[in-house]
Amino acid sequence: MSGIHSVSIVGTGNIAHHLGKAFRDAGVPISDIYGRNSASAKELGLKLNCAVVASLDDLSGDLILLCVSDDAVVELASGILEHRRLAYTSGSVPLSSLPNRTFSGVFYPLQTFSKNRDIDISIVPFLIEGNTLQHESELMQLASRISQQVLSANSNDRLHYHVSAVFVNNFVNHLFSKGKEHIEEHDLNWEVLQPLIHETMAKISDLEPLQAQTGPALRNDKRTIERHLNELEGKSKEIYTLLTQSIQQSSEK
Amino acid sequence: MSGIHSVSIVGTGNIAHHLGKAFRDAGVPISDIYGRNSASAKELGLKLNCAVVASLDDLSGDLILLCVSDDAVVELASGILEHRRLAYTSGSVPLSSLPNRTFSGVFYPLQTFSKNRDIDISIVPFLIEGNTLQHESELMQLASRISQQVLSANSNDRLHYHVSAVFVNNFVNHLFSKGKEHIEEHDLNWEVLQPLIHETMAKISDLEPLQAQTGPALRNDKRTIERHLNELEGKSKEIYTLLTQSIQQSSEK
Repeated sequence: MSGIHSVSIVGTGNIAHHLGKAFRDAGVPISDIYGRNSASAKELGLKLNCAVVASLDDLSGDLILLCVSDDAVVELASGILEHRRLAYTSGSVPLSSLPNRTFSGVFYPLQTFSKNRDIDISIVPFLIEGNTLQHESELMQLASRISQQVLSANSNDRLHYHVSAVFVNNFVNHLFSKGKEHIEEHDLNWEVLQPLIHETMAKISDLEPLQAQTGPALRNDKRTIERHLNELEGKSKEIYTLLTQSIQQSSEK
Repeated sequence: MSGIHSVSIVGTGNIAHHLGKAFRDAGVPISDIYGRNSASAKELGLKLNCAVVASLDDLSGDLILLCVSDDAVVELASGILEHRRLAYTSGSVPLSSLPNRTFSGVFYPLQTFSKNRDIDISIVPFLIEGNTLQHESELMQLASRISQQVLSANSNDRLHYHVSAVFVNNFVNHLFSKGKEHIEEHDLNWEVLQPLIHETMAKISDLEPLQAQTGPALRNDKRTIERHLNELEGKSKEIYTLLTQSIQQSSEK
């Protein structure tokens, strides 16, 4: 048997939904799915029009794809027969965490997924790794069926990309939360900030982030920084203080 | 005399460049400019095709617009005759910092400006305040000649918007710097992060930031967080720790 002709999906979260949908749309057969939460598994099974199984042993796809949180990968893999072909979608779990398997691999989409939001999977970078050349090559072929951006990356490089992704997505999004929280605490209009957010992103396509930097921290406008800190408390104040220091440190380099 | 028929610009930085260009393009006469740095003033004068004067006393526009850093507004204003019509572009300086003037006001564009990057001024929100109704109304009319988004905002509200702007622009951009720094330290490819950055911004137009949040901090993937922290040092490590705590605190609310 060569090639991956069908996929079993383990997990029912955001990544399982989006990858499942991408496989379905690309005509990759999804044999079945398994999830600890049976209601979620049933819902996803209906959406993907595939069987829902009650045990990992019942999964019948050529590849078992673990779409679960990073911390659950190792434990779940231990419940799957060693000779089954396996891959997981986690950014940070090193492949060496799954020793003694015939075929283990990584199928990591570098993107943020939310359930009720469509994503163009075809431009999502997939970072692929396999414990054998053959397995890696087959995972890359599978990824190529749904995306035009397929890269081979070892566990260290994938971890570095994941760290950077946390900064440019998770932390950036949290700063939007904090900015919005401040606006709403004062009964002002969040929409007024939208052109600035739009330009923040547009800038980053054209300029180096260091060139794009502006604001009171960079200019060391001490009185402005003091006025801003007087407005803030708790974590927002700590974030303001630390990021101001960090901007100033970066500009001195 | 009623209405502002010409503008004198003080300052030669990013805001002076962009507002000057916007006035020129909208047909608002720029009488002259003044800047401490005479080479920069000459350059801007050539660009805007207007006179460069050697002293604040020589400025002849109906309105003197201080396009200078927040910390320089008060000092510069003290060198301008009290009866001259004045406004400044700062987000954080309260109008009460300029008492005893006949006409003082604020002309604050809520946007990030870099010199070599064009901006569509017509969608930039201008937050306007005047010490008299007449002055405020005239500043709003002037802003309307270059932008479709003109708001009246008092000094407190403007300060709140400015704080939020620092979070959603200055701090967000710095996180891009930090993310890029990490990628380059490991000789990896920053372009791989671009689809994620693009989706981060696209999401924020459609979803609440709290709904858009994903990642190891939100899921409390302890082993992932530990792996990431082991990768980092200095300010990047401090930022990772603080923003992880802050995301977790926000999700508990």
